Amino acid sequence: MKKLLNDPTDVVRDSLRGFAAAHGDRVRVDLDQRFVCRGDSPRPGKVALVSGGGSGHEPLHAGFVGRGMLDAACCGEVFTSPVPDQILAATSAVDGGAGVLHIVKNYTGDVMNFEMAAELAADADGTEIAAVIVDDDVAVQDSLYTAGRRGVGTTVMVEKIVGAAAEEGRDLPACRALAERVVAGGRSMGVALTSCTVPAAGKPTVDLGEDEMEVGIGIHGEPGRTRMPLAPAREIARLLVEPVLADLDFTGAPVIALVNGMGGTPLLELYVLYAEVAALLDAAGVPLARNLVGNYVTSLEMAGCSLTLVRADDEMLRLWDAPVDTPGLRWGC
Amino acid sequence: MKKLLNDPTDVVRDSLRGFAAAHGDRVRVDLDQRFVCRGDSPRPGKVALVSGGGSGHEPLHAGFVGRGMLDAACCGEVFTSPVPDQILAATSAVDGGAGVLHIVKNYTGDVMNFEMAAELAADADGTEIAAVIVDDDVAVQDSLYTAGRRGVGTTVMVEKIVGAAAEEGRDLPACRALAERVVAGGRSMGVALTSCTVPAAGKPTVDLGEDEMEVGIGIHGEPGRTRMPLAPAREIARLLVEPVLADLDFTGAPVIALVNGMGGTPLLELYVLYAEVAALLDAAGVPLARNLVGNYVTSLEMAGCSLTLVRADDEMLRLWDAPVDTPGLRWGC
Repeated sequence: MKKLLNDPTDVVRDSLRGFAAAHGDRVRVDLDQRFVCRGDSPRPGKVALVSGGGSGHEPLHAGFVGRGMLDAACCGEVFTSPVPDQILAATSAVDGGAGVLHIVKNYTGDVMNFEMAAELAADADGTEIAAVIVDDDVAVQDSLYTAGRRGVGTTVMVEKIVGAAAEEGRDLPACRALAERVVAGGRSMGVALTSCTVPAAGKPTVDLGEDEMEVGIGIHGEPGRTRMPLAPAREIARLLVEPVLADLDFTGAPVIALVNGMGGTPLLELYVLYAEVAALLDAAGVPLARNLVGNYVTSLEMAGCSLTLVRADDEMLRLWDAPVDTPGLRWGC
Repeated sequence: MKKLLNDPTDVVRDSLRGFAAAHGDRVRVDLDQRFVCRGDSPRPGKVALVSGGGSGHEPLHAGFVGRGMLDAACCGEVFTSPVPDQILAATSAVDGGAGVLHIVKNYTGDVMNFEMAAELAADADGTEIAAVIVDDDVAVQDSLYTAGRRGVGTTVMVEKIVGAAAEEGRDLPACRALAERVVAGGRSMGVALTSCTVPAAGKPTVDLGEDEMEVGIGIHGEPGRTRMPLAPAREIARLLVEPVLADLDFTGAPVIALVNGMGGTPLLELYVLYAEVAALLDAAGVPLARNLVGNYVTSLEMAGCSLTLVRADDEMLRLWDAPVDTPGLRWGC
């Protein structure tokens, strides 16, 4: 295992120390409770957005804390759900009296712990809490860690679009309804060329042969649909685009696309894949309105990528374009 | 070799196709001459900034084309200098009559080919051209591909700061002088934990043992100062910070810091390193005014990182903060 670390068991805490040193002008980092929140929290009268999950997927989620996106992110151990106390502490820290929306990727532990924290927060502070579960991965129905579909790239879209709506002053039911519309229109599919190594484990999570790739892999290395010989980018693009388009009709609406690197794939290659994806979508009559190409939902140093498409509308595009000021996504500010 | 590619020999062209598909609303891509320029080029009366170099370092340079930064970037083959004809074509495409500044990383081939292109452009169009050579890597004096010091992370600072100055209407001598001030105040040092693989070569560039790291490595895998056993992040930080501080006095001036990932190192780990770097700089009395943490000057999928410090002043900070709208760096727009 070759990593930039001190003690592998301290990696999340050490990384949060660095995050605080780099971005302390805009965020607060609670090193004990392991969450990051906006420096100006709580914002009275604004619905607060809280997300979180296992670490190792950076910039998701802490990198998306800031104006126009998340109010707080809870950072679990690597590939491990945050605990209810963390989520409760983050929720209390950002509660501005207008309610809190929990944005939860669909992993059994995350869902359970966010639910428990919501009950605790409601009991303790009377905070009004709503939750949206992101379950956009079309690869498999049930998986290691997950009942139902896993939550992946659409999470970024929910955080950005609903973050902008909350910034505009929309109330909790409206934020929740919008989040559910984004989730309903979002689909993802990923592929891994190599494994990653969880620091505390010290050995590769997945045993992938020299000429193999895992199609439909999860962001923690969970098994996908099929393991097959490494293929050219145009074939990999087809393996990602076809199941996504088969699952939802993306024609006739503006689409936001994310070609997401899993950590170890160079940007040079992500653009090679984007060219193939864009050609396939064009041939299928899917109009690409916005895009992101880069590392947004990573799996440590895994080589590979995922495709996320969100069926949007004019309102979602306007909220997508609205100012955002976070370490991981920034424009208009 | 596990990569998202079609034919390895077409990787730069295929990647530029993807870049055009993703960012065609803001840039033009010339697939024959292999350069990227702002969609609104040429801008009459504005000094144009042109950079470029071998591909494989993305987002550098094409990712930094846009308002407030570069007017054009020339994309050589992977780790190979762009040829004079490319540079000439890019220079002509963005020449708005106020002269062109070539920003060149100090590699012998790059310097020679930019010089040749400058002569051709002056002869053909009478274009006034100035050049700045970035040579900020303190690791070694001469190296494979390079006479003198190599050019690395300070290039991003030059492109951003001088890009903002050109946007404000500064003339060519002023842009050049500013670029030279940034270079004079910039120092870098890198470390690699793993090699990368050039697609057309198909095998790792550097032969690094399972427990080894290369301190002072170049961005093409050129030898550094020393090869030694893998060390904890706090020790690696010291190995980067000490030679940088030994080379230039960074006390008493605001400093812009870049903790740069080489492509295969997770953001989680880059923040671990940033924490150690920030502590060392604080102890040394170096005031950190701005920072970037992430992949900005990569070496394909190499694991490792580099540290760049630029000794700035209030004017440079103001230009650093000015609006920028590129695929790789974006704020205020």
